[in-house]
Amino acid sequence: MKSTRTQPNLSDIASRLGARLHGDGSQRIVGLATLKDAGPDQVSFLANRAYLKDLPSTRAAAVLLHADHLDACPVPALVLDNPYLGYAELSRMLDPQADAHQPGIHPSAVVAEDASLGADVSIGPNAVIESGARLGDRVVVGPGSVVGADCEIGEDGFLHANVTLYHGVVVGKRVILHSGCVIGGDGFGFAHDGGGWRKIAQLGGAVLGDDVEVGSCSSIDRGALGDTVIGNDVKIDSQVQIAHNVHIGDHSALAGCVGIAGSTRVGRHCMLGGGVGLSGHLTICDGVQVTGMSLVTNSILEPGVYSSGTGAMENSQWRRNAVRFKQLDSIAKRVNRLEKRGSGEA
Amino acid sequence: MKSTRTQPNLSDIASRLGARLHGDGSQRIVGLATLKDAGPDQVSFLANRAYLKDLPSTRAAAVLLHADHLDACPVPALVLDNPYLGYAELSRMLDPQADAHQPGIHPSAVVAEDASLGADVSIGPNAVIESGARLGDRVVVGPGSVVGADCEIGEDGFLHANVTLYHGVVVGKRVILHSGCVIGGDGFGFAHDGGGWRKIAQLGGAVLGDDVEVGSCSSIDRGALGDTVIGNDVKIDSQVQIAHNVHIGDHSALAGCVGIAGSTRVGRHCMLGGGVGLSGHLTICDGVQVTGMSLVTNSILEPGVYSSGTGAMENSQWRRNAVRFKQLDSIAKRVNRLEKRGSGEA
Amino acid sequence: MKSTRTQPNLSDIASRLGARLHGDGSQRIVGLATLKDAGPDQVSFLANRAYLKDLPSTRAAAVLLHADHLDACPVPALVLDNPYLGYAELSRMLDPQADAHQPGIHPSAVVAEDASLGADVSIGPNAVIESGARLGDRVVVGPGSVVGADCEIGEDGFLHANVTLYHGVVVGKRVILHSGCVIGGDGFGFAHDGGGWRKIAQLGGAVLGDDVEVGSCSSIDRGALGDTVIGNDVKIDSQVQIAHNVHIGDHSALAGCVGIAGSTRVGRHCMLGGGVGLSGHLTICDGVQVTGMSLVTNSILEPGVYSSGTGAMENSQWRRNAVRFKQLDSIAKRVNRLEKRGSGEA
Repeated sequence: MKSTRTQPNLSDIASRLGARLHGDGSQRIVGLATLKDAGPDQVSFLANRAYLKDLPSTRAAAVLLHADHLDACPVPALVLDNPYLGYAELSRMLDPQADAHQPGIHPSAVVAEDASLGADVSIGPNAVIESGARLGDRVVVGPGSVVGADCEIGEDGFLHANVTLYHGVVVGKRVILHSGCVIGGDGFGFAHDGGGWRKIAQLGGAVLGDDVEVGSCSSIDRGALGDTVIGNDVKIDSQVQIAHNVHIGDHSALAGCVGIAGSTRVGRHCMLGGGVGLSGHLTICDGVQVTGMSLVTNSILEPGVYSSGTGAMENSQWRRNAVRFKQLDSIAKRVNRLEKRGSGEA
Repeated sequence: MKSTRTQPNLSDIASRLGARLHGDGSQRIVGLATLKDAGPDQVSFLANRAYLKDLPSTRAAAVLLHADHLDACPVPALVLDNPYLGYAELSRMLDPQADAHQPGIHPSAVVAEDASLGADVSIGPNAVIESGARLGDRVVVGPGSVVGADCEIGEDGFLHANVTLYHGVVVGKRVILHSGCVIGGDGFGFAHDGGGWRKIAQLGGAVLGDDVEVGSCSSIDRGALGDTVIGNDVKIDSQVQIAHNVHIGDHSALAGCVGIAGSTRVGRHCMLGGGVGLSGHLTICDGVQVTGMSLVTNSILEPGVYSSGTGAMENSQWRRNAVRFKQLDSIAKRVNRLEKRGSGEA
Repeated sequence: MKSTRTQPNLSDIASRLGARLHGDGSQRIVGLATLKDAGPDQVSFLANRAYLKDLPSTRAAAVLLHADHLDACPVPALVLDNPYLGYAELSRMLDPQADAHQPGIHPSAVVAEDASLGADVSIGPNAVIESGARLGDRVVVGPGSVVGADCEIGEDGFLHANVTLYHGVVVGKRVILHSGCVIGGDGFGFAHDGGGWRKIAQLGGAVLGDDVEVGSCSSIDRGALGDTVIGNDVKIDSQVQIAHNVHIGDHSALAGCVGIAGSTRVGRHCMLGGGVGLSGHLTICDGVQVTGMSLVTNSILEPGVYSSGTGAMENSQWRRNAVRFKQLDSIAKRVNRLEKRGSGEA
């Protein structure tokens, strides 16, 4: 499993990133590290001024940074307008896992005879590929993962271990699905018959665009009628719940523990903080950010930043304030009366 | 995996649903769709007045609706007092997955010799049935699912792929468990010895009634002493956490991301919105609804609707209000003083 | 799977717990139960005064209790200063699952040739141990679990069914990982290139100390650079999300549905209630407790109890108060003006 790739030198890296190299380019590089931790065969980066204090003493082989900080850099520098973006690219270039999966089907995997497998797919031990599934070129299916009947996975898709796709799920190109996530499970639909619940079969599907990533143990349910749709380049963290018939626009990002109820539509380039909850049947327009653990019960039709809740405080102080919250309407009315009295109206 | 069932015509459907058919009954039906999307071989339904606007232009083969809307229907109609309930039944009738699983044990499944299997069970690839487990007639165990030692699963139970039951879990009839859910894991019990934690073995069980459904990636822990008990016809969505020794009454429904702490008892016919949290050792009586993301720290002894929290607002407005929350007790006291002053008491 | 251990009698138990036995020690004991439910071959305990009312009528073989309650005990007693701690130890002593796993590798498991297995390991059906993994003595890997390449699991580790460890995860001794949990998945790291997201490879690891327990369906992500670190004796409940580069200090406990964003450091002996959310890049000092569903957006540098939010109330009352929350800054300013007016300043 160890990578056998040749180690790039600083000149190779500068060329790959389109960076201007200041200093000698011959040093071979084995990895990335923070300014504080980097050793002489590692590259570091400066993308946040909070870490500027660590620059003068860094022992990195070189630092990715903006031209503004070149003078303060005691080692060779790779100059870029957006060092954070350079760090992202370099992290992928130096990832020892990038070539960890060899093509081939492990003998313990169970692949339906009529499944269609592209070139150079990798199917791990005890994975299951059901009837009619179609996997694009270079798709990786990790150990224990299950690809349901008639699923489609675009080229370069990567399912880590123990991922589950229900039947008929459609996944774009270069999608990454992390362990324990479940795509295409039944939406939560029941009709009440007066005494109890009658299940509504979930007849729709789940469609993920290109370049989607879904974190570990997240759930994306299939539609009741019509599909649940995740746009291109949508990034979904761990422990997220996306209910039936939700649509998420391209390039949106959902942090951990987000929950979105049925049929809500989130626009493009939205960002939902950790633990945010969206009620069902809402419209959230493009360019909306919602801060952590906010509850959104109404549609948002203007781009911007939205929040709810209150931050933590010391418990005895909180108790005094929280009990007053239950009196808030009464307090407001009393202030109204006081104002009227003061102005001679009372 | 494709369904081979014969397609019903409208007369068949009317008879099955107990609906009054207006129009020709000979059209064969292949599926269900919304009023907007339905084509000439699909049935649609009108159960929510918000969609009445789509009725005049529908191209559906027929529409399930209440007699009140019959006159506005441009196509054949299936008249029912409760069209939503009719939709639920029809969705199951037309579900192409309903007969997707053939009886049989996949050769890669690992079934303990002393497990007891009912008639026509279906055990998927790489599933594991441990010693002493008993599966009722027609139980389906999906690929990669694990049924622990001495579990009991009632007839017509359906475990999707990658479900986990710990040892001794008891599941009623017609239960549906979605992928990634875990039933019977250890409750979170530790005693503090002054320096650190000592585990309390979780010796109880987990018992699910008939007609229970549990969503993907949900956790229902086993009891510490005595059982965690989920009543009949309880519907649990995805990403839900139910702690040890919780009891949920019959016909209750829990939306996504709900968390219930240990030993709390929820009554019958309760509905918990998405992300609701219940503290431990509470009693929630029958017929309680709690709205999304509310925190319940006290028992609720009267049926009704309960809520907490505040809805999202624009961030700069929110900041101004949230900071005042920390002053709320002080504001309330100052209003008290102003009132006393105004009334000549001060 | 049935335990074949010999049943201890009360004298054996007293000796094991270091308890003072009052009464006859010959009774054989098969289990533990509450004061109300215990029968004549079960031990019970009294650790909470709320249950003192059940003591006089108990039919238990014996009761673990503090000397203060000895006089009220109608049956033999096992006297300890900390009966709850005694209960914890006795629960483990009487756990019929404690010896349920026999050493050996199930023939359906897939174990890499270069994996290193300690003495008496137990590898369940369809488990996967990848290349270079090292398992200590007596490690148990449950059915369907996947241990990634180059992982290390210390002695007496217990992975229940369907656990996933990504590559290179390091786990201490006596660690318990529950079904569906995922350790070492990618952290949520992306750089924005102006149009969309570019993945940041997550090159760090995940390191769990000794005596850690992780609940079902929880996620602990690997670090971006450097490791995510879970200290010794940290107890993590179900449905928890721990993001990249978080550090949790020794002996801390996290209840269900907690979410911790990237790079936050939680101290030793902290307790986070169910559903608590911590923002990223915070410092939480030792000895902090946060009550359920609180949102923490600032570092906490003093030990103590912290809270946010408001408890649930009847919905119509809540609506009136919640709408006033949006006016709270205005109300506060109006109170300021009223005070100035009353004091002659206005």
